[in-house]
Amino acid sequence: MSLTLKILGCSSARPTPDRYSTAQVLNVLERFFLIDCGEGAQINMRRYRVNMLQINHIFISHAHGDHFYGLPGVISSMSMQSRTSDLHIYCNERLAELLNATVNIGDSPLGFNIIFHHLTYKNGLTLLYEDDKVTVHSFPLRHRVPTCGFLFREKPKLRHLNGVLANELEIPISKRFGIKQGEDYVASDGTIYKNEQLTTPPDRLCSYAFMSDTMKLPKAVPWIEGVDLLYHEATYGEDNKKRAKDNCHSTAKQAAEIAQAAKVGKLIIGHYSNRYKDLQPLLDEARTVFPETYLAKDGEEFVVK
Amino acid sequence: MSLTLKILGCSSARPTPDRYSTAQVLNVLERFFLIDCGEGAQINMRRYRVNMLQINHIFISHAHGDHFYGLPGVISSMSMQSRTSDLHIYCNERLAELLNATVNIGDSPLGFNIIFHHLTYKNGLTLLYEDDKVTVHSFPLRHRVPTCGFLFREKPKLRHLNGVLANELEIPISKRFGIKQGEDYVASDGTIYKNEQLTTPPDRLCSYAFMSDTMKLPKAVPWIEGVDLLYHEATYGEDNKKRAKDNCHSTAKQAAEIAQAAKVGKLIIGHYSNRYKDLQPLLDEARTVFPETYLAKDGEEFVVK
Repeated sequence: MSLTLKILGCSSARPTPDRYSTAQVLNVLERFFLIDCGEGAQINMRRYRVNMLQINHIFISHAHGDHFYGLPGVISSMSMQSRTSDLHIYCNERLAELLNATVNIGDSPLGFNIIFHHLTYKNGLTLLYEDDKVTVHSFPLRHRVPTCGFLFREKPKLRHLNGVLANELEIPISKRFGIKQGEDYVASDGTIYKNEQLTTPPDRLCSYAFMSDTMKLPKAVPWIEGVDLLYHEATYGEDNKKRAKDNCHSTAKQAAEIAQAAKVGKLIIGHYSNRYKDLQPLLDEARTVFPETYLAKDGEEFVVK
Repeated sequence: MSLTLKILGCSSARPTPDRYSTAQVLNVLERFFLIDCGEGAQINMRRYRVNMLQINHIFISHAHGDHFYGLPGVISSMSMQSRTSDLHIYCNERLAELLNATVNIGDSPLGFNIIFHHLTYKNGLTLLYEDDKVTVHSFPLRHRVPTCGFLFREKPKLRHLNGVLANELEIPISKRFGIKQGEDYVASDGTIYKNEQLTTPPDRLCSYAFMSDTMKLPKAVPWIEGVDLLYHEATYGEDNKKRAKDNCHSTAKQAAEIAQAAKVGKLIIGHYSNRYKDLQPLLDEARTVFPETYLAKDGEEFVVK
């Protein structure tokens, strides 16, 4: 498996014992990304066996408390566990200043550096993070304060070279990487072997998009098109459609409409208002539009293989 | 009953699902005081049915995260529940600035005023709060950063006047309040009635002292002498006595020695290090010195009648 999403909190503004505020840990090829960090995130990391020291990159969608009040606790606890490696936090500039002041108010300097990356909220996809196998982009959402969604993708992989055939044809090692990238092969006698003869397609790429908090935002569809997994807030049901609009949130049906338009694999809804003790109506509402919808719940894990 | 203490968190630095960081709600004659506010305090308020809107005064002992990271969440949730009445917070000056910045970073102005009172950490008892029936004082503890303990006391009550006798003697109404305060009564014929003949002692006064975080501090004994209930940190047992000293904390035995010297009614220990999965050894250790010792646990309630 190459992508696992663990939900640490699925509530909107006010956390409850069963529904903490928004926080998730995404594992893409053993890179662990923390997405938002509501109050109690470190407690649920402990409850659901997430090793916080594996997390090197934290993405905070916006500066509403239910998305970042758990961050000082996570940072402090990382330090108490003798973390030394850099921690990268992607958030807005004012929040970065505030977090710095918060974790430095005591007498215990952190044992590691925090490197803040300021979100720009620019239109379209903006590259935030890249390594040899994974990219992370932000894209703007529409909420009451500047807010970003995040797109996590595996990088394009190499095609699989038919090793037996390559040996038969005596393809030099120096040529093989190019062929895996899609090149044809010209033998020493001038024969051209088309790439399709020599290779099979690469493994498919896993991808995940996170959209919270936001009004229904059709213009985001091209940015998240075809992702395996989409998390989209569904703070309300259609019974509170006006309230959703007034507060710049979405209904479960609207989330499903976005999922359908973007042809995603699965939709996960979350960020529920406390008024919904029973979440089944929200799930039912979304599934009328997009059957592959699932409920985020604290401790729940979603795996893309 | 006139004094009830509800424990919302009993852990030291790193909270766990069963032991949140330090937070307590004290009810003295229907005044609700929040003492420290570690991460997740609002979640445990919900779990243990504490109405946060009844809290008007919050006391933060010191600026270590495990004693205040839950405060922004409590404040935000109070506002979301349409609080309008003033909220008084007693803490150090830098922490006050930080809290202000934190709760104001979003776009939702609070619906009520926060009035900050800066702790001075002066030697002896310093009056922080007073109404017609209750006083709250701070007193300095000895920790790695400036830290206060807090003393909550009912104010001296009036003596009980023997109403039958007062009527027989035809004591004027105008004299009766003075007699309840301890005055003798001189009748119109010059006869002197000693106060002890006319009254019985007032109801006893309830009191509670909070001491966390601190090294063993014998000089605090006179400040807390005779309280009904003493909460004293016991981060470690004697097995970690050196570590306790190095980190400016106490052992369970040291907490018990303070309780014994101050002749308190009951001792509650808490602020446990995570290394103690089983708390019984800490309790046993304290009880060898002070038998009336009890363990703080999340959700536990202590009542003084």
